[in-house]
Amino acid sequence: MDSPHAYNRVAGHSVERLAALSDGIFGVGMTLLVLDLRVPESELVHDERGLAYALLAILPQGIMYLMSFATLGIFWVGQQTQLNHLDRSDRHLTWIHIAFLFGVTLLPFSTKLLAEYYHYRTALAAYWLNILFLGSMLYASWGYAFRNGLLKADVGAGTASAVCRRIIWAQSLYALGAALCLVDTRLSIAAIVAVQLYYVAAPGYRRAVGSPNP
Amino acid sequence: MDSPHAYNRVAGHSVERLAALSDGIFGVGMTLLVLDLRVPESELVHDERGLAYALLAILPQGIMYLMSFATLGIFWVGQQTQLNHLDRSDRHLTWIHIAFLFGVTLLPFSTKLLAEYYHYRTALAAYWLNILFLGSMLYASWGYAFRNGLLKADVGAGTASAVCRRIIWAQSLYALGAALCLVDTRLSIAAIVAVQLYYVAAPGYRRAVGSPNP
Amino acid sequence: MDSPHAYNRVAGHSVERLAALSDGIFGVGMTLLVLDLRVPESELVHDERGLAYALLAILPQGIMYLMSFATLGIFWVGQQTQLNHLDRSDRHLTWIHIAFLFGVTLLPFSTKLLAEYYHYRTALAAYWLNILFLGSMLYASWGYAFRNGLLKADVGAGTASAVCRRIIWAQSLYALGAALCLVDTRLSIAAIVAVQLYYVAAPGYRRAVGSPNP
Amino acid sequence: MDSPHAYNRVAGHSVERLAALSDGIFGVGMTLLVLDLRVPESELVHDERGLAYALLAILPQGIMYLMSFATLGIFWVGQQTQLNHLDRSDRHLTWIHIAFLFGVTLLPFSTKLLAEYYHYRTALAAYWLNILFLGSMLYASWGYAFRNGLLKADVGAGTASAVCRRIIWAQSLYALGAALCLVDTRLSIAAIVAVQLYYVAAPGYRRAVGSPNP
Repeated sequence: MDSPHAYNRVAGHSVERLAALSDGIFGVGMTLLVLDLRVPESELVHDERGLAYALLAILPQGIMYLMSFATLGIFWVGQQTQLNHLDRSDRHLTWIHIAFLFGVTLLPFSTKLLAEYYHYRTALAAYWLNILFLGSMLYASWGYAFRNGLLKADVGAGTASAVCRRIIWAQSLYALGAALCLVDTRLSIAAIVAVQLYYVAAPGYRRAVGSPNP
Repeated sequence: MDSPHAYNRVAGHSVERLAALSDGIFGVGMTLLVLDLRVPESELVHDERGLAYALLAILPQGIMYLMSFATLGIFWVGQQTQLNHLDRSDRHLTWIHIAFLFGVTLLPFSTKLLAEYYHYRTALAAYWLNILFLGSMLYASWGYAFRNGLLKADVGAGTASAVCRRIIWAQSLYALGAALCLVDTRLSIAAIVAVQLYYVAAPGYRRAVGSPNP
Repeated sequence: MDSPHAYNRVAGHSVERLAALSDGIFGVGMTLLVLDLRVPESELVHDERGLAYALLAILPQGIMYLMSFATLGIFWVGQQTQLNHLDRSDRHLTWIHIAFLFGVTLLPFSTKLLAEYYHYRTALAAYWLNILFLGSMLYASWGYAFRNGLLKADVGAGTASAVCRRIIWAQSLYALGAALCLVDTRLSIAAIVAVQLYYVAAPGYRRAVGSPNP
Repeated sequence: MDSPHAYNRVAGHSVERLAALSDGIFGVGMTLLVLDLRVPESELVHDERGLAYALLAILPQGIMYLMSFATLGIFWVGQQTQLNHLDRSDRHLTWIHIAFLFGVTLLPFSTKLLAEYYHYRTALAAYWLNILFLGSMLYASWGYAFRNGLLKADVGAGTASAVCRRIIWAQSLYALGAALCLVDTRLSIAAIVAVQLYYVAAPGYRRAVGSPNP
């Protein structure tokens, strides 16, 4: 009986609870930034046109919120996909996911930072480090689950490596986009948004799924 | 083996997780606006009557909060009904629902905007666009699920088209209500609230369900 | 085919989703008030004794937070008990519960109001109306579920009426406590807290459960 | 028929609901503190170097947030492990867990207090009392469940006592760390962080689990 590890062996096994905690944290994170969207001050608005202009003035903030929401959505789908394929968890895997969730709670902050300082490379670097951290944790958790036999029996080697390749591809594109800040930070942001839109829309996916010989 | 789509084919399949994320976001959204209900400043209140007046003064805000809560409730019931009839999800459907949830997080903002600027058509238009966006996403997700065979086997064509008709009816009534702002924005708000109350109360529903020959 | 009600007949059936939404709303509500607990300003604290006094100064707020948390806990247990005994829901029952949840989100506000104006009958009346509303909604939902055959098959008439009696008893005690404000509002608050503590502790419960002949 | 206890006997039985409420509260708690991380004021930042310095200036807050997140993570894993081994709950056990959750919502406050007043023993004592309260509630709930036969059938006496030992060990280490504040509060904080890191990393765990003769 390996006494000091007896507790650790029974800790953190529930994938469902991990999923529920994640959904709670993502749910709060996805609504936090909207708190920064302030209704225009009524002293400054005197007619319809004034209100329309005031709303246009907070549009950049709104777009930044949309971008943050989409980024959280991408990582939520990624994490959900991984958890779906887990047969069970263990305490190390649980902690890798908690680290991932820490990165999730920071994302609204890095997005706000980038929105305020979009012409600063430092802000872009901070945003990119956040994305990199999230990708690394997803990669680490998948690799750990694969090596320690925590995946479901029906997850073939094909799916297992597809997930890894996907993370590496996405992170390479993000890194490339971030590197463009050496030219211009706005170019860099545009590239990152383009990568994100690509992953949201996934063009060609339905055609591939619907094909008779998948 | 269609490699670039291998990941997409396993992503976003869990209806349960989508439901859990939605409940988290609705839960936060439904409590956010109450943060704006401020307890009256104690410097301004000197006796029972003063406190009663101070509470009356924030009643309009309270009613606006109730209206926002009811609207979120209507869309929560709508989305829950749809998810209940899904056999499974896929990545496109998941993203349509995430877009829907984005609209949900904006609703407290548009409600506040309308509360502050209830005599402005611009505010009413913004509120109506939010409602329209939510309805469109619900319609899109149901249509997508129907066309791609993601509905449960026991969902007959009757139920499928009842859901579509319901969304179109509700949205037509909302659009009609919004159009009344050409006359008076307050008339418009009253009409929208009346439509919402109708959908909350659903008069005649129990009688119909309880009838021997349904 | 009763067309206008076809949608209503399939809407709002999921007890699990209703429970998940409730847990989200209770979870947010139970943490909202702690945001009002402010760490003492460092300008006002110069030594250990100063910090201890500053913490003592926010103790009343802390106790009010504990009271609000306990009240939410009582109603969470009540609502959870009801939902556990539901076989299924329907759209009316779902809306009664959403109304209940509206009362839940107001509770942090009424508690803050009472904390700030504990010597005002108006504040006590507002707090009591909130409690009364919550109890009424629980009573309405249980009665509706009972009359319309939505309870699980193993819920005997004994349990069904025990739940009703419980709500009426608790509400009578709260009303009695609130009526004491005609003498002194502080007496009234003490009585309400005593009732709450009684329901939290439930003295004699374990002895009764553990007895050989229950 | 023991009438006054009839309600209590059916109340609070759902472990799943208790888990869902906990995940909601932990989820909100884990994101609350990030609200205090403020993006640097743009008036104070004039170039890349200025932004980098401004970010460095809020690094201590960031570390404190990480520490609070990790502490919540530790107690989340602990509570999740306990709930996983419960066969069912009853109303007393539910209330012990609600008390535990109360301590959880206070943790962001005590962490902020310690961050602001890290050189004050009073702040350290408050933080430690919070940790002690959480540990005590976990111990109480496990003991109660064990004594009243609420654990799952497959939980052997070995696991049952391993959980108790674990809590006592951890709390002893925390108490020892807190006692170091008699020398220096910073030494005390370092010791507590070291204990937390040890429990997060759990060195040697995988080796023990993966060994052929566990």
